Amino acid sequence: MEFGRPVEHIRVRPGMTVGSLLAQMDEAGVLGAGKLGRAARILAKMFSDPDCSVFLSLAGALVPGGLRSVIRDLVERGLLKAIVTTGANVVHDLVEALGFRHYVGTFRADDAELLEEKLGRIGDIYVEMRAFVALEKWLRDVLKEVPADVRKAISGSRLIRELGLRLEDPNSIVATAARKGVPIICPGFVDCVAGFQLWTLSDELGLRLDPLGDLSELMNLVLTAERVGLVILGGGMPKHFLMFATTFRDGADYAIQITTDRPEPGGLSGAPLEEAISWGKIKPGADVVTVICDATIAFPLIVAAALEWAC
Amino acid sequence: MEFGRPVEHIRVRPGMTVGSLLAQMDEAGVLGAGKLGRAARILAKMFSDPDCSVFLSLAGALVPGGLRSVIRDLVERGLLKAIVTTGANVVHDLVEALGFRHYVGTFRADDAELLEEKLGRIGDIYVEMRAFVALEKWLRDVLKEVPADVRKAISGSRLIRELGLRLEDPNSIVATAARKGVPIICPGFVDCVAGFQLWTLSDELGLRLDPLGDLSELMNLVLTAERVGLVILGGGMPKHFLMFATTFRDGADYAIQITTDRPEPGGLSGAPLEEAISWGKIKPGADVVTVICDATIAFPLIVAAALEWAC
Amino acid sequence: MEFGRPVEHIRVRPGMTVGSLLAQMDEAGVLGAGKLGRAARILAKMFSDPDCSVFLSLAGALVPGGLRSVIRDLVERGLLKAIVTTGANVVHDLVEALGFRHYVGTFRADDAELLEEKLGRIGDIYVEMRAFVALEKWLRDVLKEVPADVRKAISGSRLIRELGLRLEDPNSIVATAARKGVPIICPGFVDCVAGFQLWTLSDELGLRLDPLGDLSELMNLVLTAERVGLVILGGGMPKHFLMFATTFRDGADYAIQITTDRPEPGGLSGAPLEEAISWGKIKPGADVVTVICDATIAFPLIVAAALEWAC
Amino acid sequence: MEFGRPVEHIRVRPGMTVGSLLAQMDEAGVLGAGKLGRAARILAKMFSDPDCSVFLSLAGALVPGGLRSVIRDLVERGLLKAIVTTGANVVHDLVEALGFRHYVGTFRADDAELLEEKLGRIGDIYVEMRAFVALEKWLRDVLKEVPADVRKAISGSRLIRELGLRLEDPNSIVATAARKGVPIICPGFVDCVAGFQLWTLSDELGLRLDPLGDLSELMNLVLTAERVGLVILGGGMPKHFLMFATTFRDGADYAIQITTDRPEPGGLSGAPLEEAISWGKIKPGADVVTVICDATIAFPLIVAAALEWAC
Repeated sequence: MEFGRPVEHIRVRPGMTVGSLLAQMDEAGVLGAGKLGRAARILAKMFSDPDCSVFLSLAGALVPGGLRSVIRDLVERGLLKAIVTTGANVVHDLVEALGFRHYVGTFRADDAELLEEKLGRIGDIYVEMRAFVALEKWLRDVLKEVPADVRKAISGSRLIRELGLRLEDPNSIVATAARKGVPIICPGFVDCVAGFQLWTLSDELGLRLDPLGDLSELMNLVLTAERVGLVILGGGMPKHFLMFATTFRDGADYAIQITTDRPEPGGLSGAPLEEAISWGKIKPGADVVTVICDATIAFPLIVAAALEWAC
Repeated sequence: MEFGRPVEHIRVRPGMTVGSLLAQMDEAGVLGAGKLGRAARILAKMFSDPDCSVFLSLAGALVPGGLRSVIRDLVERGLLKAIVTTGANVVHDLVEALGFRHYVGTFRADDAELLEEKLGRIGDIYVEMRAFVALEKWLRDVLKEVPADVRKAISGSRLIRELGLRLEDPNSIVATAARKGVPIICPGFVDCVAGFQLWTLSDELGLRLDPLGDLSELMNLVLTAERVGLVILGGGMPKHFLMFATTFRDGADYAIQITTDRPEPGGLSGAPLEEAISWGKIKPGADVVTVICDATIAFPLIVAAALEWAC
Repeated sequence: MEFGRPVEHIRVRPGMTVGSLLAQMDEAGVLGAGKLGRAARILAKMFSDPDCSVFLSLAGALVPGGLRSVIRDLVERGLLKAIVTTGANVVHDLVEALGFRHYVGTFRADDAELLEEKLGRIGDIYVEMRAFVALEKWLRDVLKEVPADVRKAISGSRLIRELGLRLEDPNSIVATAARKGVPIICPGFVDCVAGFQLWTLSDELGLRLDPLGDLSELMNLVLTAERVGLVILGGGMPKHFLMFATTFRDGADYAIQITTDRPEPGGLSGAPLEEAISWGKIKPGADVVTVICDATIAFPLIVAAALEWAC
Repeated sequence: MEFGRPVEHIRVRPGMTVGSLLAQMDEAGVLGAGKLGRAARILAKMFSDPDCSVFLSLAGALVPGGLRSVIRDLVERGLLKAIVTTGANVVHDLVEALGFRHYVGTFRADDAELLEEKLGRIGDIYVEMRAFVALEKWLRDVLKEVPADVRKAISGSRLIRELGLRLEDPNSIVATAARKGVPIICPGFVDCVAGFQLWTLSDELGLRLDPLGDLSELMNLVLTAERVGLVILGGGMPKHFLMFATTFRDGADYAIQITTDRPEPGGLSGAPLEEAISWGKIKPGADVVTVICDATIAFPLIVAAALEWAC
């Protein structure tokens, strides 16, 4: 067994940039810091490669957790080909675009009291339930403007684009993506507050969702890309959906994932990226790394470093 | 702050039944063992309550991981009102129903070698890729038999029932559920091998999925139930989808979940059931417990104990 | 890459014994259930092998968590050569032997209120602080009986044996081990309530701890054993101390560990047993398995199954 | 239940400093990023408070993982009152001080092959076994220089200071701490390679360890401090030992811990700092936060930010 290079010790200086610290972590090369540094290097490569289409998948409380602008700014900078997401992150973005906010709470809340106060809890974040009442009203109004023949079989991505075109909040991911023509693919859109609201409106509006339409849109982007880079935050359906699409082109060229899920119970959310090689989702020899970390910590760091290095 | 009862120490005897050991864990009442014992007690209550509709949600590698018969037998015994699942668990059940098997492998596999050998890896489990070729052929044949007007907007649950009615494997969850009239609700069916296969067949067969149809079916069952019990294995879309449905009836009456995901990053998969109270998904004062454990360990144990006590 | 055997699905029957369920998990052979079943098989082998010295290491809240009798009964049955432990598990056993109990509490306690109520919290377990006052008084009385020349350099194991010989509680691990001549090796005894109490008494009693004495005792047992089996609950100092001792004999022959710690951050507590092979702590080819599980769940299960099979 | 402030979204700019990013995370205030930002704020407070004695506890593979210089530089800057550590981190520092290195390896190593190559593995880090042979020789030489009456009852901290005074490596934590007069308290020193080496030398050198001496040294520092701040990396014996000492002064004033251990199994390593309030280890109302993160990621970040803000 041949030796690797020695572990170089990380050196901290007051006022150092995020990029310079993550470069040192990459030099250290081991444990969590080594993985974080390498993830930033791979992301910088994706951003620097003009022929690489970068796909971002989102699961978990990323928008409520403070990453809304980080994601939105990547869209604005033209660095993402598409986003694949749970419905929840779309809903959370819409809630803020409609003027509501998420609030700093506590994990140790009294949930029965929150119920009475009409506050929904997401970890240590609270959101007012009246935001969802406003959302339902707004959704109905927007959907009425969508042509009936579109409504009768509408993909998540088309629906989200229609919503985004009607939002004025410049900080909204959904609005920015619609303006920039970046699809937000959401094959499981029915699984969120808005999905349930669509269901209650479906008879009145003759509305049907078309998840195969999301797949067509994703496949088109994946198959026409020169190279494919995957950035996977959390697991769930977005991870599986995005990675399965790449099997049709012998796998992705670059991939990073950030998760705190464990591999041992066998679920896909916690599976290391190496496993994806066996399925043809990632090319053997591709540049990949998994960072075991809360995405609200790791993602801003690697984005900051990658932008510092690549842009 | 008032005292609880004392921790009673677990006593182990050779040849003791699963139920007698879990009863002792329930008596101990603390840490993981206490939660496991309590989960078994709550499950026994659900099974013993003739007015309780029990809903089981599945995410993760449960069928490949050896739980196929545990789930199938619950359906056969008439103990489940419905199953809400990822597509993957359906696909894994179909693969076995078509005569293929999952194999014991290792987490430390060489995935590039598995790719060459045409074996897909799920944790420490291998599956032959040719199983999916056979699945696609079979799916096409079955779908041709489904009336064209059904195909043009078919819910995941209807589709899975059609598949189940055409399977002969008595050990199949899908076949048993179809025979017993237990819906397998799968709002994100597009997110699995079969979902991608449906997409490739969709033009030829005029096929469209209708996830709002899954929601209608689930809502009907949830709204007409006297009491609702939730059994949640893993998180993901099935957990969210099932629990959101219960908000329309002021929450579930009983709930247990088994997961190894962490609550701190804020994702729903790792959220404790208490959080669901704030959203109206679970009634304040309901009988709930979260067991932090691999579901392949905890679920057979609590099912064995609950059947021993309740049946 | 050659195929393993197929995954056999677990079958649950009401009234089945723990051993019969864990045998099925072993047959399934994958994910957590497969590891649990295999751990029970390995433990049964250790118990059945008359030339195998079994060493149990303890870290974490095992006694407060309800495992006191499980451990004590293994000592009583003569199945353990020695126990290596944190001081805390000794203290918790002593507290119960002196007539105090641990109480069922909650993880969501108000800790400032507990402080006022003089209750210490361990997860969801409470213990009265007055128990430690009683412990200190008792310790002083016992130590005065220990000859002064022994006190001036006393190993953790010798000290614990002196304590055990003066306890009358038949359910005590410490008392049972003293009666049966099973050493309780505690190289870090200073790190517990009793350790701090010894420090306050040290001038008065001319007391000094001798951790190298613990090492001598352990080495003697490890070096004279025909075969060595390791049962590791939690990690910490007991795991490291016990496993390092086996390097002097080319490693252990059998080993199981139960932990919820992660391997990725690189700490020994979460390290898989395979890593120990590189250090010579475990023989290449030895029968080893790591179960990722709360020990209060997994340990009673594998003990029950191993006793059912082996005794 | 009153509302908290709104979650402010993190904004990333290329070239931003670590401090400016962590300030934004602190503003976001929720999930992992919020905890990380708050930990940096609390650490900056400790560093800025001239009457605060800061104690750092170390467990896990911190030195091999690349944090050697981060820790050493804090000692050099005079920011630490004392370090409480496992023996392993001392040994790893000594190994490098003697001219050996840690090497970048892989978690997926063949450990039997590493054994043959005489490489020990720590996660994805390799170390040459011959380093420990050199260490033993050096230890013997140094210990011979220590006066015999000191050797007959030497605390871990005194022993480590003697070692540090004989090292020339300016990057060594042990050497820098000895030069600066910062104690490295190591009550469980017997639990490491060097501890076992001391045991083999003990007869020849008349050597005995005195862990109560470590406790005396720690207690003296804790009891004479105006205010106490705790920085806890990993758990294990150092965490418990350090925190228990603070019960003698009604608890610490500031505390941060970084860990990936879970609280649910009840072990102290994964226990949240709130639990410590019930024991009087931390003052009610103290400034505390737990960051669930790999310490090799989180610690350099919060040190960089705290130095940027405080120095």
